[in-house]
This record gives sequence, structure tokens and C-alpha cells, in this order.
Amino acid sequence: MSQDAINFRDKLSLLSEQWSPRVVAEMNDYQFKLVKIQGQFVWHSHADTDEVFIVLNGQMSIEMRDKTVLLTAGEMYVVGKGIEHRPSAAQECSVLLVEPRGVVNTGDAGGAYTAANDIWI
Amino acid sequence: MSQDAINFRDKLSLLSEQWSPRVVAEMNDYQFKLVKIQGQFVWHSHADTDEVFIVLNGQMSIEMRDKTVLLTAGEMYVVGKGIEHRPSAAQECSVLLVEPRGVVNTGDAGGAYTAANDIWI
Repeated sequence: MSQDAINFRDKLSLLSEQWSPRVVAEMNDYQFKLVKIQGQFVWHSHADTDEVFIVLNGQMSIEMRDKTVLLTAGEMYVVGKGIEHRPSAAQECSVLLVEPRGVVNTGDAGGAYTAANDIWI
Repeated sequence: MSQDAINFRDKLSLLSEQWSPRVVAEMNDYQFKLVKIQGQFVWHSHADTDEVFIVLNGQMSIEMRDKTVLLTAGEMYVVGKGIEHRPSAAQECSVLLVEPRGVVNTGDAGGAYTAANDIWI
């Protein structure tokens, strides 16, 4: 657990690779991860958990099979457990993810976008 | 669970009473709560859980027995399980709290600042 204030801007400045979540804090068995995204991710779902997106900078969309949610800085959304979703962003967008420790970014889908897990910045 | 984007500014505009957390989202058995704070809270701790503070607007401090952490907008801090802490803010400050459903704001301390729980805005 971090011992001091965690500054999102400072942490984001350390993060160059897109679609690669990095852990900045833990609360109980949950992790807070920063990620920069741009372009279109893969369709995937997480069978065992909800997933929270909090947009810090920019704008993104979360496409689901029945609707698309647009998120801008200062907005959050909870993707329900098991719901297929595909995040995307036209311009680079910075996001704070909240999910249980061990969740893999591509969920059930795997593939080239699958990032190493549990890496802190 | 909310079905659309949750806009913090819009939600905060509905929140007048200070020190009264209001739920805006749930993820699994965790809740995301907005709260406006000003002045000095009571010393308290939460025996069973860590607690996350994410500052959205303004500035606050979290006094602990061995140190004080200053948080400004765009910063977060995790108060560890069982750690006594006393939040305060000279000017009104808006905070996003993350903690398990059922956590009471004054923890073990009780008293006049104890807010009704599980109220959504």
C-alpha cells in the first residue's frame, strides 16, 4: 500500500505504453490502476467481477452489445460482471480502473492486447 | 447499479449537506460515494476495511497518529484498515470515497457526525 498521496498526473507521466494498466494503489483485495488508451480495444468480459472506469483526461466510449456509453473527464461507469464490452478512444484518454487484484485487461478474450498484470508505477 | 455515465459534477450539485456521503455507484460489494467536507471531522477508524479518498475538488488533509497526508484535486490516498484518522478541510472539498457497502462514516467513533448510510444520489 502506498504511504503517501498518489498524484494521478505524476503517475500518468511515467506511463507511456497504451492499453497497459499499471497499479497505483490497493484497497483490501482491490486495485486502482491507471491506463492510457487510444484506438479500439477487443471485445471481452470479466466473468467474476464488475469493472469501474473513471475518466481522468479526455474522452472514451464503452461499447456494449445493447448500448454505448460515452465518458468524459470527471465521469465514471461500472461495467457489470459478465457484460461484453469494447472500450475505445479517438484521442488518447487517461483512465483510472478499479477492480479486484488479478483481473486481466482482456478478460476472457486474450490476444495481443493482453497486458502483464500487477505491475506498479 | 447505474446504467449510464455518472458525472461527478452533476452529482455534486445535488449534494448540499457536508460530511454526508451519498452513493453514486456500486461495484460488486463496494460503493463509490461522493461527499463534501469542510472543517474537522472526528478521529475514527474502520476495523474491517481500508478506505479510499479521491479528491475531486479542493484540498483536504488526513491526520493520522504518526503523520498527516495532504491531498489536492487529482490525488488519492488509502487509509489502511484499523488506522485512526481525522479528515479535515479548511475550504469545502469534494471527495470520492470507495469502501465496502455498509461502512459507516464515523467508523468506531459514532457521535454527531454519523451519517445515514446507503443513501444514493
